Amino acid sequence: MMLKRDVDLKAAVEAAWAAAAAHRGEGKVASYIPALARVDPMKFGIAVVTRSGEAIVAGDADEAFSIQSISKVFMLALALNRIQAMLWERVGREPSGSAFNSIVQLEVEKGKPRNPLINAGALAVTDAVIGDGSPDEAVAALLDYLRSAGDDGAVLTDDEVATSESEAGARNRSLAYFLSAFGNLRNPVEDVLSAYFRQCATAMSCRQLARAGLHLAFDGRDPVTERAPITPSRSRRINSLMLTCGHYDNSGDFAFRVGLPGKSGVGGGILAIVPGEASVCVWSPGLNAAGTSLAGAIALEALVERTGWTVFA
Amino acid sequence: MMLKRDVDLKAAVEAAWAAAAAHRGEGKVASYIPALARVDPMKFGIAVVTRSGEAIVAGDADEAFSIQSISKVFMLALALNRIQAMLWERVGREPSGSAFNSIVQLEVEKGKPRNPLINAGALAVTDAVIGDGSPDEAVAALLDYLRSAGDDGAVLTDDEVATSESEAGARNRSLAYFLSAFGNLRNPVEDVLSAYFRQCATAMSCRQLARAGLHLAFDGRDPVTERAPITPSRSRRINSLMLTCGHYDNSGDFAFRVGLPGKSGVGGGILAIVPGEASVCVWSPGLNAAGTSLAGAIALEALVERTGWTVFA
Amino acid sequence: MMLKRDVDLKAAVEAAWAAAAAHRGEGKVASYIPALARVDPMKFGIAVVTRSGEAIVAGDADEAFSIQSISKVFMLALALNRIQAMLWERVGREPSGSAFNSIVQLEVEKGKPRNPLINAGALAVTDAVIGDGSPDEAVAALLDYLRSAGDDGAVLTDDEVATSESEAGARNRSLAYFLSAFGNLRNPVEDVLSAYFRQCATAMSCRQLARAGLHLAFDGRDPVTERAPITPSRSRRINSLMLTCGHYDNSGDFAFRVGLPGKSGVGGGILAIVPGEASVCVWSPGLNAAGTSLAGAIALEALVERTGWTVFA
Amino acid sequence: MMLKRDVDLKAAVEAAWAAAAAHRGEGKVASYIPALARVDPMKFGIAVVTRSGEAIVAGDADEAFSIQSISKVFMLALALNRIQAMLWERVGREPSGSAFNSIVQLEVEKGKPRNPLINAGALAVTDAVIGDGSPDEAVAALLDYLRSAGDDGAVLTDDEVATSESEAGARNRSLAYFLSAFGNLRNPVEDVLSAYFRQCATAMSCRQLARAGLHLAFDGRDPVTERAPITPSRSRRINSLMLTCGHYDNSGDFAFRVGLPGKSGVGGGILAIVPGEASVCVWSPGLNAAGTSLAGAIALEALVERTGWTVFA
Repeated sequence: MMLKRDVDLKAAVEAAWAAAAAHRGEGKVASYIPALARVDPMKFGIAVVTRSGEAIVAGDADEAFSIQSISKVFMLALALNRIQAMLWERVGREPSGSAFNSIVQLEVEKGKPRNPLINAGALAVTDAVIGDGSPDEAVAALLDYLRSAGDDGAVLTDDEVATSESEAGARNRSLAYFLSAFGNLRNPVEDVLSAYFRQCATAMSCRQLARAGLHLAFDGRDPVTERAPITPSRSRRINSLMLTCGHYDNSGDFAFRVGLPGKSGVGGGILAIVPGEASVCVWSPGLNAAGTSLAGAIALEALVERTGWTVFA
Repeated sequence: MMLKRDVDLKAAVEAAWAAAAAHRGEGKVASYIPALARVDPMKFGIAVVTRSGEAIVAGDADEAFSIQSISKVFMLALALNRIQAMLWERVGREPSGSAFNSIVQLEVEKGKPRNPLINAGALAVTDAVIGDGSPDEAVAALLDYLRSAGDDGAVLTDDEVATSESEAGARNRSLAYFLSAFGNLRNPVEDVLSAYFRQCATAMSCRQLARAGLHLAFDGRDPVTERAPITPSRSRRINSLMLTCGHYDNSGDFAFRVGLPGKSGVGGGILAIVPGEASVCVWSPGLNAAGTSLAGAIALEALVERTGWTVFA
Repeated sequence: MMLKRDVDLKAAVEAAWAAAAAHRGEGKVASYIPALARVDPMKFGIAVVTRSGEAIVAGDADEAFSIQSISKVFMLALALNRIQAMLWERVGREPSGSAFNSIVQLEVEKGKPRNPLINAGALAVTDAVIGDGSPDEAVAALLDYLRSAGDDGAVLTDDEVATSESEAGARNRSLAYFLSAFGNLRNPVEDVLSAYFRQCATAMSCRQLARAGLHLAFDGRDPVTERAPITPSRSRRINSLMLTCGHYDNSGDFAFRVGLPGKSGVGGGILAIVPGEASVCVWSPGLNAAGTSLAGAIALEALVERTGWTVFA
Repeated sequence: MMLKRDVDLKAAVEAAWAAAAAHRGEGKVASYIPALARVDPMKFGIAVVTRSGEAIVAGDADEAFSIQSISKVFMLALALNRIQAMLWERVGREPSGSAFNSIVQLEVEKGKPRNPLINAGALAVTDAVIGDGSPDEAVAALLDYLRSAGDDGAVLTDDEVATSESEAGARNRSLAYFLSAFGNLRNPVEDVLSAYFRQCATAMSCRQLARAGLHLAFDGRDPVTERAPITPSRSRRINSLMLTCGHYDNSGDFAFRVGLPGKSGVGGGILAIVPGEASVCVWSPGLNAAGTSLAGAIALEALVERTGWTVFA
């Protein structure tokens, strides 16, 4: 990581904001549930949190949005803490090359999802987090993780979103029953879905989410609180999975353009990790075809252009 | 990149050698051509070349082997230098999730290969390098690149291997005609194949190959010779493609385990890039199911375990 | 249809029985629910019903078995009577080339099943039969159809089987939610499944089922009762779908070997139609890889060898 | 087969002509080679040849056109005569559910084509016909078969078409090399292609082709000449393959609408067999998406509507 040490981070964040501004409103806002559909497409927020815990922000960085699939990253951390490498008997770690909700490979590969960051894999991960407990406990564990890692108790589930997700959840239900048919869910399908829809409905701001991801930039240990929710080895591997699989069939393109581990959510958020340096969260609701925030990705490109941040140099 | 600064690189290379030693002979030696089939499966070499150009080696690090698909990395560099971003109109940059020689996606995606590191994509890349010239010129350009980047004139094509590749090349011929049917080759199919089979038949040792890849660890500029065959931006992007796509349907697993951009070849070589630090080449002929050197990957795991090298922390 | 007019049908049925006898017990009895798993694998029945309504039988022709997917034929008749050609906006009529419960094409083809005789298509058909009514009414309509067409009131749903099907129904549930996600079910998913599991759990003997299918051999009109539950055009088209799609990825092979429209069920039954001549039902629980009764298909081959029955000469 | 015995076949052919007339020019004329592209899209011919050998014709029934894939039917007959059931070790007999030139299944199923009527399967069939002989002998054998079966010596290869096919043959070349890579061609790839392109370039009129197919309607024995180029069993099985696989991913629809074994060619011809009654050939160059003559299929629908011809009643 060759940081241009003289970089003015505040200027870089403003440059990112400026680069993205013209692209706000482009792309397609997720519309399968009312709560997502009615979000203002012109919203844009960015927060960069560095080693000191300081946040450099711009735009709507303090407005909570639905983190959606970004929750998969933290559930993965919880599952690895809970069942360790046994997780990999149930979920692969290869890019799928397919859409987030594709079921094709799941049939060909007999119910073992390609990786924990596509929907099918995330359902198996959530099932592992539930373990012998309840869906409520799994959701509580996620909220605890996010609050502790982000050093901020104000992280909540948006119950309206969760309810809507469930009502519109036929495709995820199909995936979950498919997993169940192959014995790859230990808990009742509706229990797993209940936790899954709620984890996706977690509401956080860019500032909160960047802060909560900071430990992933420092080998699993938060440089401010010194809390280490995960081991160095797991932190690195979560980053590797974000880089290779974090954007479904857009993962390669994201790595090519941005050069950092990242995870997108259909709420328009992207969490990106700069190992050894910082954690970044951008938010803008308009999505590209693969469900990644269009203006968000442009902002990240501008940010790494200014800062020299990349894992590839 | 958090290098454990007090690491004894020589000890780390020896540890890598020791870790791999027990696994020599495991896996399957490529057998589709005699010249590869008769290589001693117990061979193992490793070379680490650092910023100073110094090589730390162990085992058969000075024995030339067939670099095979590792050549795709350097042909990609040549193609980007030649036609720049126009390459991406003809080749994607997403992991395929499929085997190196799969044709399935090529049909679904109408003749546009997923990325330049699978065979189909590499054929299109080679066609771009040929451009308006000849296959001979393309092969010569590759050799020039490798000799210059590696600061070593002794890089040659193994003509026996090249001839055998062509004779056993029905699957690659099928891919090339498929590309051609979609207008994605500008040159005659047999011309492209002629260059492709020869690029794969390049013979280099671990020491040579690690040295030739060193510029990829330093943003495209060799830290010793100061020669810069590619721009920083292209260097980073080649690394990103190696990380997400360098091992076909084993790319995610390699990133997970080794945490470095890498490219495997069925000759048993793996080139791995440690941005800002070093370039590494391992060689051992026994392959896993995805065509990556089995003992080679184990050696790399041991090496990064000792050195702390990873792009993810 | 070139019937060898001097054929002794009784001798032909006995020959079929003899040919199949040695193969009883071969193949794999469906085991996903207890009620199917515990059926004696040595069971074998055959019934041929001709224009006069006379049944020539052998073996366990009067023992009721679970008709399973053979029910799809009759539900298709009901759906065509109910919504006519509108059905083809929701279901295709091409062989799938895939397993009975495959979901791959359903994703590629955006929720439109390939044909009404694979599980996904049959679920859409059942939904069409329910229409604005209830699942109970749809099941009652099927039983009415079978009783009337078969001139036999003693056709029942095996409730134990139906309940077990539902409990073991994760794969079908997955298919149904997938259809629902694409708007291809009008009724609640569990309603459709409720009817579907019960239609599959219909219990009939070879004699009953052959008799109930007789109208399909006579352009939709029963030659004995003169009842015509379907039009000539629909009868022909149901036969065409049985021929091209009646055995999933074994349909071509069945047409090749037996040469008659047919439909298999995982209970071990096969209904085959001899246009202008007869209706045949065989039953033996051991299945081939595609879920077609192994001894049953052998019996049909022997029968058509003796009788010269085929639609292809 | 319930022929309406009082049908006026001449009137039926005229009705078919009238039904098709309005649809001439619809669809897309094959344009990948000049000789096909310049055929007048308004051409339409129909010929029905009955047991007596009499031909009832309308339109351009005596104009020769390129039979293209209809040749696969007769090459299949030759291959079965030559290597019998061994053919089925190299080619399956299931509908593919895919386009004529798809390569996807060929990869998944390791070089064994789904059936002999898709391009991949036909290439393997042609290789079997070549056997230990030459491509020239295979083409000569086909011409002999067609001349003898059609009782007409004037059947020729259109060399201009054959040459153009080869020049535009990248997709078929890709399929052939793929087969070769799996050891499923015994002869050199270019030899097999040479014969294949010439068989497709056979030029025949509707009258000639219907006459040449007549034996398929009479269990392999021509009712006029009493010549029997194939056994009854093979005749039936060729008909079954035409019915389940004769129109690629449009086979089910053709069986549904027309109800007869048939084989289409991209030259616009369709050969349809009415077992026990007649052989029919229609020709009109405009194709549907699956490569079946659009007006031709409409004419066949009208013909079977009038005559009651179908194998399904």
